[in-house]
Amino acid sequence: MALIVQKYGGTSVANPERIKNLASRVARYKALGHQVVVVVSAMSGETNRLIALAKEIMPDPDPRELDVMVSTGEQVTIGLTSMALMDLGIKAKSYTGSQVRIVTDSAHTKARILNIDDAKIRADLDAGYVVVVAGFQGVDEHGNITTLGRGGSDTTGVALAAALKADECQIYTDVDGVYTTDPRIVPEARRLKSITFEEMLELASQGSKVLQIRSVEFAGKYQVKLRVLSSFEEEGDGTLITFEEENNMEQPIISGIAFNRDEAKVTVLGVPDRPGIAYQILGPIADANIDVDIIIQNTGADGTTDFTFTVHKNELNKALDILKNKVQGHIGAREISGDDKIAKVSIVGVGMRSHVGVASQMFRTLAEEGINIQMISTSEIKIAVVIEEKYMELAVRVLHKAFELEEA
Amino acid sequence: MALIVQKYGGTSVANPERIKNLASRVARYKALGHQVVVVVSAMSGETNRLIALAKEIMPDPDPRELDVMVSTGEQVTIGLTSMALMDLGIKAKSYTGSQVRIVTDSAHTKARILNIDDAKIRADLDAGYVVVVAGFQGVDEHGNITTLGRGGSDTTGVALAAALKADECQIYTDVDGVYTTDPRIVPEARRLKSITFEEMLELASQGSKVLQIRSVEFAGKYQVKLRVLSSFEEEGDGTLITFEEENNMEQPIISGIAFNRDEAKVTVLGVPDRPGIAYQILGPIADANIDVDIIIQNTGADGTTDFTFTVHKNELNKALDILKNKVQGHIGAREISGDDKIAKVSIVGVGMRSHVGVASQMFRTLAEEGINIQMISTSEIKIAVVIEEKYMELAVRVLHKAFELEEA
Repeated sequence: MALIVQKYGGTSVANPERIKNLASRVARYKALGHQVVVVVSAMSGETNRLIALAKEIMPDPDPRELDVMVSTGEQVTIGLTSMALMDLGIKAKSYTGSQVRIVTDSAHTKARILNIDDAKIRADLDAGYVVVVAGFQGVDEHGNITTLGRGGSDTTGVALAAALKADECQIYTDVDGVYTTDPRIVPEARRLKSITFEEMLELASQGSKVLQIRSVEFAGKYQVKLRVLSSFEEEGDGTLITFEEENNMEQPIISGIAFNRDEAKVTVLGVPDRPGIAYQILGPIADANIDVDIIIQNTGADGTTDFTFTVHKNELNKALDILKNKVQGHIGAREISGDDKIAKVSIVGVGMRSHVGVASQMFRTLAEEGINIQMISTSEIKIAVVIEEKYMELAVRVLHKAFELEEA
Repeated sequence: MALIVQKYGGTSVANPERIKNLASRVARYKALGHQVVVVVSAMSGETNRLIALAKEIMPDPDPRELDVMVSTGEQVTIGLTSMALMDLGIKAKSYTGSQVRIVTDSAHTKARILNIDDAKIRADLDAGYVVVVAGFQGVDEHGNITTLGRGGSDTTGVALAAALKADECQIYTDVDGVYTTDPRIVPEARRLKSITFEEMLELASQGSKVLQIRSVEFAGKYQVKLRVLSSFEEEGDGTLITFEEENNMEQPIISGIAFNRDEAKVTVLGVPDRPGIAYQILGPIADANIDVDIIIQNTGADGTTDFTFTVHKNELNKALDILKNKVQGHIGAREISGDDKIAKVSIVGVGMRSHVGVASQMFRTLAEEGINIQMISTSEIKIAVVIEEKYMELAVRVLHKAFELEEA
C-alpha cells in the first residue's frame, strides 16, 4: 500500500466526462489498496473567464479580491471530483486551500506556501476516504484567501506530497511524459523513462512547459518523487523524475532539448569598460521588475565594451525605453538596440559532466546548417544558445539527430 | 451616522454594469457618513448553472460537496462588488461566510445560522471599510462550507443586521417595495409605505414572493428594522416593515392581498368520524416529508366525515399514492380524490382585529362574482380562501377594489 498524490490540470477536468474518467483512474488505484490524495485545477478556461470578469469591473484588479474570485475555479472542481468518486461508490471528501489549511504568505496572486496542516487529510485517508484538494490556493495567517500564481496546482500537489511524505506525486497532463524535445517539432522525439531532478529543472527553466519550474524546485527541496503522466491514456508509466543519477554506461549524454521563443535581445553598444557598468545598466531594469535571462558582456579593443541581455518579448519596449531615457546618456553608451526575432535553444543532460566536447559538437552541428550563434550561456548540465528565430525548428531537429536522441 | 446592512439579490448583481450601479448607491450612503455592510447573492443564473453541473456528475448531488460548489457563486460576487467599490475610491473588503464566520448547523443545503462572529466586520467598519459579505452561506463547527437554501441571502442580511445591531436592513430587489397585491394582476395596486411584521409574515407565507419567509421570521425574532427597496431606482423609500402598529384612524383594515397557485387539494370522503382519524390520514403524509398547508374537516350526517387538505402541486401524486395504498383501506374511506386546479387567495391586515365584518365582506364580494369558495382558513389577521384556479385573477381584482386598496 502506497500513499499517492495525483494532480490533474485544467484540461483533465475540462468537462463532466473527463472528471468521470479521472474518478475511474482514482478508483483503480484505490482498488489496488493505495491511499490517494487528488489535487485539481480549475476547469480549463475558468480562471481566464474569472480574470476577464474582474477586469470588466476594475481594469487592474485588486489582488486580494481577485484571489477571492479566482480561487472559486478549483473550489467548483473539488466538489465535482468528489461527487464523481462518490458516484462510483468511493468515499471522498473535498477541501479548499483554506480548509486544509495550506498556509501561505500574504503575497496575493503569487503567494508562497509556508506550511500545510496535514491532520485532517491523514485522518480522512486512514478512514478510507479519497481526499480531493483544491490546487493553486491557500490561506494566509489572517484567514485571507491567496493563490499561488499560474501553475500553482503543480506546486500544491508537490507540497502536499512533501507534507504527507507520499510515496509518489503524479502529475497528470495532456502529454504522456517528458520528451527529448517537443514532438510537434521533432516527430522522432522520444519519451524519457526517467530524468534527473536537475535536468528537469534546467528543461523547465529553458522553456519546456510540461512542469512548472516552481513545482520542480519544490520537489527537489523536499525530495518528492515526481512522475509525469497522461490523463488521456490508460496505460504508460510516464516519466519519473529521479534524484540519483543512474550510474550506467547506457546513460545518454543529453537528455533533452528545450527551446523558447518568448525572449528578446537588448544590446548596449560602446559602453565605457569600467567597474559598475553592469549594475548601472541592469539596476534600472530590475527596478522596473523586468526579469533578465541571459547576460553577456564582451570587452572590445578600444576601451569600450558591448553589453547584451535577454528579456521577455512583452517587456522589450519597456526595457528599451528605460535604457534610452535613464541609462544611455548617463553611462555614455553609443547605441541601444533591441531584437525580438530570436529564439533560445538549450541542450540539457547530466551526462555533460563526464563527457567533453558536447559544446563543440553542438556548435559544429549548428555551423554545418549555417546557423549563426548570437549568444551562449552554459551551466554544468546545460548549454543554451540564442539564434535567429527562423532557424529554431531546424536547430532543434539537427541537434536532436546529432545527439542521437531518437534512439532508446 | 447609521449602520446599514444592504442586501442585493441575483438580478441586482447580474452583470458588471449592475454591480457598478450597486457600488454607486453604496457610495452615496457612505458619503452621507453611514457605515455600510453589503450582502450579495450569486449573479442570477449562476446557482442554477452550478447545480446543473453537479447533476451531470451525480444525479442526486452529495449535499456537502454541492455546498462547496454552489457557495462559489456568492464568492465571485463579493470579489466583484469589492472591486467595484474600490474602483470608486472606496475602501472595501470581502468576506465569505466561512471568513466572517457565520456559524451554522451542519444541515447542508438548508443550514440554519447559529451565531455570527462580528469582530472582523466591526473592526473593518471602524477603519472606514465597506464590508461585503457573501449571502446564502456559512460554515459549520467542523469548518465545512454550508448553504442556507434558496432565499438564504435575505436571511444572511437580516442575521448580520441583528448581530451588528444595525439601524436598518435594506433588502434590494427588482420591485420597489411591498404592494397591496401583485401589480401584474391589479394595475392599481399601491406600494405600502409601511407594513407590520405580522402582516409581512402572513403575506410571505400566503404567496407574496417579495421577501423570503425565513428572513421575515428572523427579523421578527431579533427586531430588525427591514426595508424593501428597488435596486433599479435611484429614488424611493420602499416599504418599511415595522414592529408597532400605528394607532391612527387612517389605518386601512386590509394591507394586502396575496395569492398562490402552487397548491393542490386532496379530499378524503366518507371517513368514519372517530378520534385519531386526522392523525391516521396526515401521519403517513408527514412521514413522506410532504408539507401540508390548509386542513379542513367537516362532520357529515351519517356518522362519517370529509377530510380535505392542500399540498404543493408537485407532491399531489405522491400524496394520493400514499393515501390510496397505505391509508384508504386501513381507515375505510369511501373515496380519495385530488384537484390541482385550485388557487388560494388571502386578505391580510392587522385592521381586521378591530373591524368586524371583514370576512363577510370578502365572501359577499366573491359571491357577487359567482366565485365558489371551496375552503376557508383564518388567522387573527388573515382570511384565506381556496377557489377554482381560473377565478384567481378576478378574485384578487374584485377584493382589491372592495377593500379600497387602490386609494392611499
